[in-house]
Amino acid sequence: MKLLEERILRDGKLGKGDVLKVDSFLNHQIDVPFLSRLGAEFRRRYEGERVDKILTIEASGIGVACLTAEQFGCPVVFAKKTKTVNIYADVYRSEVYSYTHGQTYEVVVSKEFLREGEHVLIIDDFLAMGSALRALLQLVRDAGAVPVGAGIVIEKAFQPGGAELRAQGLRVESLARIASMSLEKGITFFSD
Amino acid sequence: MKLLEERILRDGKLGKGDVLKVDSFLNHQIDVPFLSRLGAEFRRRYEGERVDKILTIEASGIGVACLTAEQFGCPVVFAKKTKTVNIYADVYRSEVYSYTHGQTYEVVVSKEFLREGEHVLIIDDFLAMGSALRALLQLVRDAGAVPVGAGIVIEKAFQPGGAELRAQGLRVESLARIASMSLEKGITFFSD
Repeated sequence: MKLLEERILRDGKLGKGDVLKVDSFLNHQIDVPFLSRLGAEFRRRYEGERVDKILTIEASGIGVACLTAEQFGCPVVFAKKTKTVNIYADVYRSEVYSYTHGQTYEVVVSKEFLREGEHVLIIDDFLAMGSALRALLQLVRDAGAVPVGAGIVIEKAFQPGGAELRAQGLRVESLARIASMSLEKGITFFSD
Repeated sequence: MKLLEERILRDGKLGKGDVLKVDSFLNHQIDVPFLSRLGAEFRRRYEGERVDKILTIEASGIGVACLTAEQFGCPVVFAKKTKTVNIYADVYRSEVYSYTHGQTYEVVVSKEFLREGEHVLIIDDFLAMGSALRALLQLVRDAGAVPVGAGIVIEKAFQPGGAELRAQGLRVESLARIASMSLEKGITFFSD
């Protein structure tokens, strides 16, 4: 999505170790009218698909998930991160390994809010190694719900998460797919 | 707001120790079209006020903040919770005491995203003792920004947070103000 690529080039900040900070519009400050346009693009790409619910993960997925859900007229459920095992009853649980923080955390969704047969679209801000997306997909499957696909704002497509999940048959729509990034050479994209 | 009071009576679940669970529509599953109506009501109440930015706190404030910001056409900034002191440079910091979890945590906002002279509306899902709202207000003041007021979805008005902050001159608009709640007698509201 050209509009997003231009925004990343303008406002994204590269750091060491494959860090791309987009916290001026995506995951600390949220440019709400802009994210609504991203939501409309997800809606367009999943045109004709049944979407009963959008699933995301706290905290930085919530904004884009809500603004996408507006386009679909459906609810959002966000998986909660917890380091305290067993504080929730009646939840689906899955594990995410965070490469950024070098630790594993558990994510949970109440069984009330993911139901057998529901068609679920997964939305998240980033996809790199795919750990969070795999965890969300696991929650959908554990519930007996149907994963329609994933909508990702920024995919670090030089990392294997997206390719692996597509190879497993998951539809993954990423609005910007980064082919390479470095402090020296900047950012390049795979075009759609 | 009658619509919200009815929803709380229908879907809220009371627990021990002043616990009101509204996670079917507000803070785990998010009823996006419904929260957009709450956002429109905040817009109506702050009609004529200059609002440059909405400030909230992760994670459960983000949904309602984004859907309110759509009504105002402004960005959202969410304060991030951190237990790790000093991992961020150039941030405003404040402390929140969580009565639910019995611990203090730090919240931070990058100095880039709260600027001197900006008119900031604070949005959050709950107000009870007022610890989170006081922390957000402190961040606004530390930045030299102007607190326009607060928009709260559910105020536990039998707890002192709202009264104390109003007495200090902050405008606090709560869409539902709970007068009393108990497992035995249910929930009653103060009407506006």
